Amino acid sequence: MFFHDKKLQYTVKVDKPDPQFARLLQQAIGGIEGEIRVCLQYLFQAWGNRGPQKYRDMLLETGTEEISHIEMLCTAVALNLEGAKGNIIDEVVSSNPVVKQIMGGMDPRHYLSAGLAAMAADSNGVPFNGSWVVASGNLAADMYANVMAESTGRLLATRLWKSTEDPGMKDMLSFLIARDTMHQNQWLAVLEDLGGLKGVHPIPNSFPQDKENLAFNYAFVSTNINNPEDPGERWTMGQSPDGKGSFEFVNGVPEGNEPNLAPPIDEAYAQTEQKIKPNEQF
Amino acid sequence: MFFHDKKLQYTVKVDKPDPQFARLLQQAIGGIEGEIRVCLQYLFQAWGNRGPQKYRDMLLETGTEEISHIEMLCTAVALNLEGAKGNIIDEVVSSNPVVKQIMGGMDPRHYLSAGLAAMAADSNGVPFNGSWVVASGNLAADMYANVMAESTGRLLATRLWKSTEDPGMKDMLSFLIARDTMHQNQWLAVLEDLGGLKGVHPIPNSFPQDKENLAFNYAFVSTNINNPEDPGERWTMGQSPDGKGSFEFVNGVPEGNEPNLAPPIDEAYAQTEQKIKPNEQF
Amino acid sequence: MFFHDKKLQYTVKVDKPDPQFARLLQQAIGGIEGEIRVCLQYLFQAWGNRGPQKYRDMLLETGTEEISHIEMLCTAVALNLEGAKGNIIDEVVSSNPVVKQIMGGMDPRHYLSAGLAAMAADSNGVPFNGSWVVASGNLAADMYANVMAESTGRLLATRLWKSTEDPGMKDMLSFLIARDTMHQNQWLAVLEDLGGLKGVHPIPNSFPQDKENLAFNYAFVSTNINNPEDPGERWTMGQSPDGKGSFEFVNGVPEGNEPNLAPPIDEAYAQTEQKIKPNEQF
Amino acid sequence: MFFHDKKLQYTVKVDKPDPQFARLLQQAIGGIEGEIRVCLQYLFQAWGNRGPQKYRDMLLETGTEEISHIEMLCTAVALNLEGAKGNIIDEVVSSNPVVKQIMGGMDPRHYLSAGLAAMAADSNGVPFNGSWVVASGNLAADMYANVMAESTGRLLATRLWKSTEDPGMKDMLSFLIARDTMHQNQWLAVLEDLGGLKGVHPIPNSFPQDKENLAFNYAFVSTNINNPEDPGERWTMGQSPDGKGSFEFVNGVPEGNEPNLAPPIDEAYAQTEQKIKPNEQF
Amino acid sequence: MFFHDKKLQYTVKVDKPDPQFARLLQQAIGGIEGEIRVCLQYLFQAWGNRGPQKYRDMLLETGTEEISHIEMLCTAVALNLEGAKGNIIDEVVSSNPVVKQIMGGMDPRHYLSAGLAAMAADSNGVPFNGSWVVASGNLAADMYANVMAESTGRLLATRLWKSTEDPGMKDMLSFLIARDTMHQNQWLAVLEDLGGLKGVHPIPNSFPQDKENLAFNYAFVSTNINNPEDPGERWTMGQSPDGKGSFEFVNGVPEGNEPNLAPPIDEAYAQTEQKIKPNEQF
Amino acid sequence: MFFHDKKLQYTVKVDKPDPQFARLLQQAIGGIEGEIRVCLQYLFQAWGNRGPQKYRDMLLETGTEEISHIEMLCTAVALNLEGAKGNIIDEVVSSNPVVKQIMGGMDPRHYLSAGLAAMAADSNGVPFNGSWVVASGNLAADMYANVMAESTGRLLATRLWKSTEDPGMKDMLSFLIARDTMHQNQWLAVLEDLGGLKGVHPIPNSFPQDKENLAFNYAFVSTNINNPEDPGERWTMGQSPDGKGSFEFVNGVPEGNEPNLAPPIDEAYAQTEQKIKPNEQF
Repeated sequence: MFFHDKKLQYTVKVDKPDPQFARLLQQAIGGIEGEIRVCLQYLFQAWGNRGPQKYRDMLLETGTEEISHIEMLCTAVALNLEGAKGNIIDEVVSSNPVVKQIMGGMDPRHYLSAGLAAMAADSNGVPFNGSWVVASGNLAADMYANVMAESTGRLLATRLWKSTEDPGMKDMLSFLIARDTMHQNQWLAVLEDLGGLKGVHPIPNSFPQDKENLAFNYAFVSTNINNPEDPGERWTMGQSPDGKGSFEFVNGVPEGNEPNLAPPIDEAYAQTEQKIKPNEQF
Repeated sequence: MFFHDKKLQYTVKVDKPDPQFARLLQQAIGGIEGEIRVCLQYLFQAWGNRGPQKYRDMLLETGTEEISHIEMLCTAVALNLEGAKGNIIDEVVSSNPVVKQIMGGMDPRHYLSAGLAAMAADSNGVPFNGSWVVASGNLAADMYANVMAESTGRLLATRLWKSTEDPGMKDMLSFLIARDTMHQNQWLAVLEDLGGLKGVHPIPNSFPQDKENLAFNYAFVSTNINNPEDPGERWTMGQSPDGKGSFEFVNGVPEGNEPNLAPPIDEAYAQTEQKIKPNEQF
Repeated sequence: MFFHDKKLQYTVKVDKPDPQFARLLQQAIGGIEGEIRVCLQYLFQAWGNRGPQKYRDMLLETGTEEISHIEMLCTAVALNLEGAKGNIIDEVVSSNPVVKQIMGGMDPRHYLSAGLAAMAADSNGVPFNGSWVVASGNLAADMYANVMAESTGRLLATRLWKSTEDPGMKDMLSFLIARDTMHQNQWLAVLEDLGGLKGVHPIPNSFPQDKENLAFNYAFVSTNINNPEDPGERWTMGQSPDGKGSFEFVNGVPEGNEPNLAPPIDEAYAQTEQKIKPNEQF
Repeated sequence: MFFHDKKLQYTVKVDKPDPQFARLLQQAIGGIEGEIRVCLQYLFQAWGNRGPQKYRDMLLETGTEEISHIEMLCTAVALNLEGAKGNIIDEVVSSNPVVKQIMGGMDPRHYLSAGLAAMAADSNGVPFNGSWVVASGNLAADMYANVMAESTGRLLATRLWKSTEDPGMKDMLSFLIARDTMHQNQWLAVLEDLGGLKGVHPIPNSFPQDKENLAFNYAFVSTNINNPEDPGERWTMGQSPDGKGSFEFVNGVPEGNEPNLAPPIDEAYAQTEQKIKPNEQF
Repeated sequence: MFFHDKKLQYTVKVDKPDPQFARLLQQAIGGIEGEIRVCLQYLFQAWGNRGPQKYRDMLLETGTEEISHIEMLCTAVALNLEGAKGNIIDEVVSSNPVVKQIMGGMDPRHYLSAGLAAMAADSNGVPFNGSWVVASGNLAADMYANVMAESTGRLLATRLWKSTEDPGMKDMLSFLIARDTMHQNQWLAVLEDLGGLKGVHPIPNSFPQDKENLAFNYAFVSTNINNPEDPGERWTMGQSPDGKGSFEFVNGVPEGNEPNLAPPIDEAYAQTEQKIKPNEQF
Repeated sequence: MFFHDKKLQYTVKVDKPDPQFARLLQQAIGGIEGEIRVCLQYLFQAWGNRGPQKYRDMLLETGTEEISHIEMLCTAVALNLEGAKGNIIDEVVSSNPVVKQIMGGMDPRHYLSAGLAAMAADSNGVPFNGSWVVASGNLAADMYANVMAESTGRLLATRLWKSTEDPGMKDMLSFLIARDTMHQNQWLAVLEDLGGLKGVHPIPNSFPQDKENLAFNYAFVSTNINNPEDPGERWTMGQSPDGKGSFEFVNGVPEGNEPNLAPPIDEAYAQTEQKIKPNEQF
């Protein structure tokens, strides 16, 4: 069950409202690298967690924290769209041609659809999509999804930090960047807790490895048309990071034949020309 | 530039066509864990690669291989929809009530829209979505996206392997599972090549770490309403995996105040009741 | 800021796991009538609230409660996918033809993508979409969006209640139905608080009504080709519910002319045949 | 069956073409608050109407009128993209850096994909989505969906009215605003016709109310972590608007226990570490 | 402006309701091959038409007819979901395990979300998407989009015709198939009217052909890794259908070099390992 | 199976980086008219091809070529986002208000999400969607889908050509325009190979034409409310292009009756007012 405090997790202050920066912040709210995604991802992983309960407990902790981050960012968007300390907003909705150029960089739906508030969308107005929420039922796979989400999320936050000179916004972002540092490490710690690289890989580690095709599971297959030699890179020779094989380098060749599909059945209503007998081909 | 051979990378053989399994295979083609995603992801990472060229070279190699995997799976779907060795297909399109129950598990668009062939969609018919293609411009973040994609991809392949008794399909899947093993290790090898955990984290490692809020970047923030004590887990104490901090456990408290937004501007056409002066609140 | 308790808001118990009912429950999680939508909708309305703070306070209260509802439903999905009390799950993933017919009614991604847990999608596997989150900046419009969401949500819950005989599921749903009753009334109470029908309509009530076309704002325009007479319904005569006009019935006629667009400009590369002079038309 | 007249329902005239305003108008065509949505929504409600036929008749009337509104707005977009009365369009496609700044506010697909005409998308180019069409089979729920659609639609139209100084566009919008006034009142009239608040609520009113959990159907559940007292608002005390209960205020507490899911089944291929026995937890 | 008659364009009669066939019919309503698409496509082409008005007139005629087709199909879905002549619907919502198998083939949202009526979605419940509406501003390109839409639409209708034994449904489909025959021919007639193949191709025909790369505009480029010889097919030799060139067959070779992107800029926060100087590569 | 060469199919050179043009180029990568669509479309058509193998062979050839086109365009986007030859990029991420106006025309995700590289999205940032991939199992229908894709694709390329003055970009586009010329002709050649208009139409040509409603398959149905006379156009009289009928002109009248749906069933929980007996209507 969930509760709230009316106060924010961390101070959100905008010194100089900037409608264009409000648009950029949307990427961190409803974008694939954003906070709605990680919030739902950690919570769905918790709600579907099977196995040791300590992982569920931890996921609930952090999934809940992420709601507070969405709240901070939505507040930041609303404040950046305000005209309290200037006349930016009044201008934005005016018909002045110079202002219209500014509005080119603003999300028009911030005014038209939201009345100067945040939306569940990215910086191009593309709505948040539930398909981004990864909760696979395999804890190690989910942890990599989480490291990846926090890595692209922290990357986004640093680029946003670079895109503004507003001290309040830089302070808020430095907090969010710090949390992303923690969360990257947190998910790595779980992977360590699960046995580290050799313990978790190949994911899933519960599939009997002798059932996979053993000729191809540590082979770097080159598709280069010029049949190059082994470049001797970390991924073409030596022990594999999971400790369960040795890399090798091979030039790819077809192992299969040309596909040979049956002629179309009557019910599929292909063109009549397609209805040849197999032995009529060629 | 790209080339093809008419033969398949690996043999695709279906002993007993199964339209329901064809539907399941779609998840590995157009689903978020599927091959279109990794194919475009590795190729977009290659095409946008900046920095040492060897990473671009490698990404091109494997991105190209993934096209061959889409081809194998699409061929497998087409063969599973065939009636060559039985009368399943004829029945599927009949009006026999028993057969209709079978069709309940088939994707109707395999017949209606594709004439018994594969589609660029997942096992529920939800179309492939370009938002799943992650290419961030940060090599380490991209490698985690790749490990995650191969982990959920291998997980999917093992579940598909479990869902069929067809020897041909099991053989094809054992090949694809093997390639996922390789690719998981391959991306981990790149991370090792980039300096390992301590070298790559926190991602991005090119942001000056003293600009983040140092009070929060290694703190596990508990949102549990009951203010629990430090459970002493790997992620609440000890050195962080990136080697750059020490975990601590804190009970979350609001660091910010309640947000205080300005009253609505006239142009947003809120309800008139909303237009109070701030000091009139309460 | 947000907090959680590891216990659920209300008991979730499944007497007999039912993978098909798990699929139906998804509509209440990630469907347009579902709980993710209302949760984000109330929270975004709160976070963007301008005007009297008491509305923000209330929206935060209920938006937070809805997270607890998502949690309950996700738990219900996971329990319905369990094989603890039977062998349903084992059968579902087998190749037994009878079982495959059952699987026809299950969402295959519950196994393939989630490992027997809930997803952020509807009962057809279509992902949750952020465009459904309505927060317009006009409190009355938002309240109608909320009444509508709770109405279709309660409707869905009653249909789910009808679709199961499981006592635990019926009990959980009777709780959720009760909450929807409350929330419908709650949003209506806000509308009453805002002045009732006459006070809030037409929404927005802050637009000067003399700026709208006064010949058409209370006229029922019939598009029936047979030019019917006024049927004398509540919506064709008498005072309008907003108390600001009187309904009338008119047969629609074109008030405008045929559109006359300029010929294509060169840069649009239409077909050359399209580049006639206006006076050459006809 | 449907018919058309080549003339428009109302005059559409653009005095000074404005490609940026064309982009804003798209929100009223293909956005969630737009005319394609209400058009399809009313028609689908009519086509699926069961019960008294007079509601079907009315829905057909107004659903048909909305097609005429899409037509007007598409014509307005085309005219705003014209260069007949100026050189705006020529400039838009030039390479002049000043002009390119203007193009920042234009939808590039208006030129690239549509050759200076309207599209079935919103002001950010996000395509119209059929999930927005609500036709639930419950007339009262549908009427609230309609009031909500006309409320956010009228809100959008007033904001568009504010965003232009063009007399022709202001005149067209004053007509559309008037129609939204009518339609808001029309759907309210139907709700009145159905028995008013007490008759229609809680929606659906055909579910036996004693089957819902009676302890929670008129209780305002506070999730505020500070356990506040009843604020005495309209929604926490007094009779509920539906006349069927009395509001009360309660501080939320978990009514349920922590969820306890079974360990993962073998077939889900979770990590091996997840496969503990329940009594091994902690 | 648009009008309606309460009667249908053609009789819609269902002899034996079939909820599974209702699901299949959805493909013809909200699928990419369906009637909402062609309806909006023809109307948007009409509303954006520039050039001779006769094309606009014709597009309005047929675009309006398509609304009547959506109406017919929605009525057919509603009738197929009825229990008037049997107890199918009662069973569908029961918990009987045999009936549940039937429901496997039904769209659950037909009951849960629509109360036994049609939706703006395809046969998998994927919503209609406005991106499918093609109106390019080039009449010939649009006519090919229309021929394609009617071709896949007629193909779908014949497959639906094959999937039912219901006389009423077969009769309705034979009407729709006939209209698709007409419309395919109608759009071909426009292409003939525009000058036929040689007149309209290459589309757009208003681009100066000497500005394209003349070495490649009639060359079949083989990407086959085995460098095959010219197979002498219709598309590798002889005059091109547009009458403006001669086909030739060439084996593809790279005309360009390896791409050489600049190192990442500081502001993109790539990994530090990526920041090498160009001459440090290899 | 697929292979690659590290060199590009054709030279890609950018003389003066232009971030706004990079955004426009996205339409040709991830837009509905773009190269990802045709690439997957031709490959899926090949992989599902049934009937003469020569069509599969050809589709594989060209589908593979299109990957090379995506590669060229992605390289062009990356180069247009570079600051190597100017200071545009540095400015783009600065806070200078003049530069921010420029950024209005740039896709912010090119910096925020991709670190100055291409994405799998269109010029508005809307992701590529797999529903655009048409592979129907009917070769003639597919060829029209291909002609249409190449027609709107060539149209887009000519508009892009018009939108830039950069010699390198104009050269690359002249190559792509030439390939679109070839591909339009190529698909037309296949249609000729299949028997030409009379052979392929109506598509599918394998459905017994006497099963369609013969009164309506060559009739132009006017929906004009004013009952106009036959305008004597190419599409209202004379032989149909498929050579199988003669056009006629008819004024549309309803052939069907008003739909009469059964009252709602109890389980659908409509409003109680809707539950009338049929003879109680009116």
